[in-house]
Amino acid sequence: MIAVLAGGVGAARFLRGLMLEVEPQYITSIVNTGDDTVLHGLCISPDLDTVTYTLAGAIDPERGWGLENETWIAMGALSRYATTRPLHSHAAPTWFNLGDKDLATHFYRTARLAEGATLAQVTAEIAQAWGLNLQLVPMTNNSVQTVITLAEDCEAGKAGAEISFQEYFVKHHHSVAASAVKFVGSAEATPNGLELLASADSVLIAPSNPLVSIAPIRSLAGVDNILAQRRDSVCAISPIVNGTALKGPADRLMTELGHESTVVGVAKIYAPICGTLIIDNADAHLASAVEAQGMRCIVTDTIMKSPQVSAALAKTALDATR
Amino acid sequence: MIAVLAGGVGAARFLRGLMLEVEPQYITSIVNTGDDTVLHGLCISPDLDTVTYTLAGAIDPERGWGLENETWIAMGALSRYATTRPLHSHAAPTWFNLGDKDLATHFYRTARLAEGATLAQVTAEIAQAWGLNLQLVPMTNNSVQTVITLAEDCEAGKAGAEISFQEYFVKHHHSVAASAVKFVGSAEATPNGLELLASADSVLIAPSNPLVSIAPIRSLAGVDNILAQRRDSVCAISPIVNGTALKGPADRLMTELGHESTVVGVAKIYAPICGTLIIDNADAHLASAVEAQGMRCIVTDTIMKSPQVSAALAKTALDATR
Repeated sequence: MIAVLAGGVGAARFLRGLMLEVEPQYITSIVNTGDDTVLHGLCISPDLDTVTYTLAGAIDPERGWGLENETWIAMGALSRYATTRPLHSHAAPTWFNLGDKDLATHFYRTARLAEGATLAQVTAEIAQAWGLNLQLVPMTNNSVQTVITLAEDCEAGKAGAEISFQEYFVKHHHSVAASAVKFVGSAEATPNGLELLASADSVLIAPSNPLVSIAPIRSLAGVDNILAQRRDSVCAISPIVNGTALKGPADRLMTELGHESTVVGVAKIYAPICGTLIIDNADAHLASAVEAQGMRCIVTDTIMKSPQVSAALAKTALDATR
Repeated sequence: MIAVLAGGVGAARFLRGLMLEVEPQYITSIVNTGDDTVLHGLCISPDLDTVTYTLAGAIDPERGWGLENETWIAMGALSRYATTRPLHSHAAPTWFNLGDKDLATHFYRTARLAEGATLAQVTAEIAQAWGLNLQLVPMTNNSVQTVITLAEDCEAGKAGAEISFQEYFVKHHHSVAASAVKFVGSAEATPNGLELLASADSVLIAPSNPLVSIAPIRSLAGVDNILAQRRDSVCAISPIVNGTALKGPADRLMTELGHESTVVGVAKIYAPICGTLIIDNADAHLASAVEAQGMRCIVTDTIMKSPQVSAALAKTALDATR
């Protein structure tokens, strides 16, 4: 059994490669839900949906999120209310795009949760509805909210104000400076997810943002302890290549929060729980600095331009844990 | 000031005519919300929306509900989950059609209620967003549910089972026999609606279903007492013409629940609270039987084939209350 800690786009592409190397029924991905939000009364789990849609071959390849051949009619109609709502109201937000086909997933999740199903149950049902054979597990069945503290006065608010991850990431295009990230909510890790982290033959940490995709999972009681005890069979892939993130704000967040925005910075974050770090060929000159953090370092092609590159990367990661 | 008790389609057409006779700012419509439901986590108020969309000139003229030029992409995508949900689950219902543009209204209502706004506030905001100048007031800010008891074993359940109004009306196409209608919930009438019923110059009861559109409003404490005290300036239009309902189940419900499905049956229901009943030319022979119930009876054209007919009907009703 293989467990994969996952965020959104990078993790989804990595999992797609892993599924070319290993039968899906041997793979369980534990997915970040700190980005989850409620909009229009609908329960939205962006990372779970990105992974599901990607592995189902239904993701929009240009955007990297949402469904291909999507339409935006409901969102278009919402602008009527966005322009007439009372000044103090935040109803009818139009900054978070929800495609018409994608809405069905949020409708289903919301209704099932209202029926008393756990998020883990609903996630498994949605994965099955899309024909997936691997197991997707939300990191928790409870609510954990990733909260960003603003470093300075900006369009998003005053210095020190706290905003939700989706406000940071989508509404403000992760272009405002952060001084802190925290995870709010007294949540427990999903029980079978936690058991799997202990019992799996391999644990892989996908090339996701260490601070806002993997850190929420690590914030749950037990996760870091379990991984630390088995760190030799844990392998992470650096999402930082040549000092920058391929997608998203990992590089600037690392700098703003006092880390080096390099594979060495990633190594320092993961060293306590992870025996091997895979870095890109572009960072080969930093391999010994990674090893100085007490990790094995593997240098290979990590830029997942194709499923084949993803598959080769996944095989390298798996081999490293054996 | 004119107050109009209203259900859905018939009331909407009547109000459209009334607005041709009277400046909209003098009209307040108190609208049934016993049909309201929650689907996919969204707060849906079918009668309020039918009235709003009709008066905004945006209703689909064929269906009589929902928006014209509507698309159904979200509903189409929902079928994936409807066919894969667990057997015991009612999530992803596809029997209640929600158009993509219409969804924006439910998104806004749901979000505003979650922000703490009352349904009356949200209803006013939605009416304003659609450019309406009359006042729309939900009958209550609380939850009242119109519940139908099944008369016999049928596709909807066992005899004696209770189903929601929308299950009765939409899911089962109001084709199952009812033995009772009740209104569940400890609701108060919307305060300004109740005041208006006392102070308005005229109260009109639109040609809506007496048992499931007007009765929920009448079930609220104070409404019938206020109307009884001023019954000479209250005028109703019969929704029953020649023994049948122009739309919906009013005729069969009246029979099933022990009323005559005629204008005389309507007169018996409204006589305690209403001084005048307007009936269609087709029922002219029943005018004296209506008058025998202690009401004035006016015979005219009540079939609202055009806004002009609706306007003439509204003028007749208004004149009757003066």
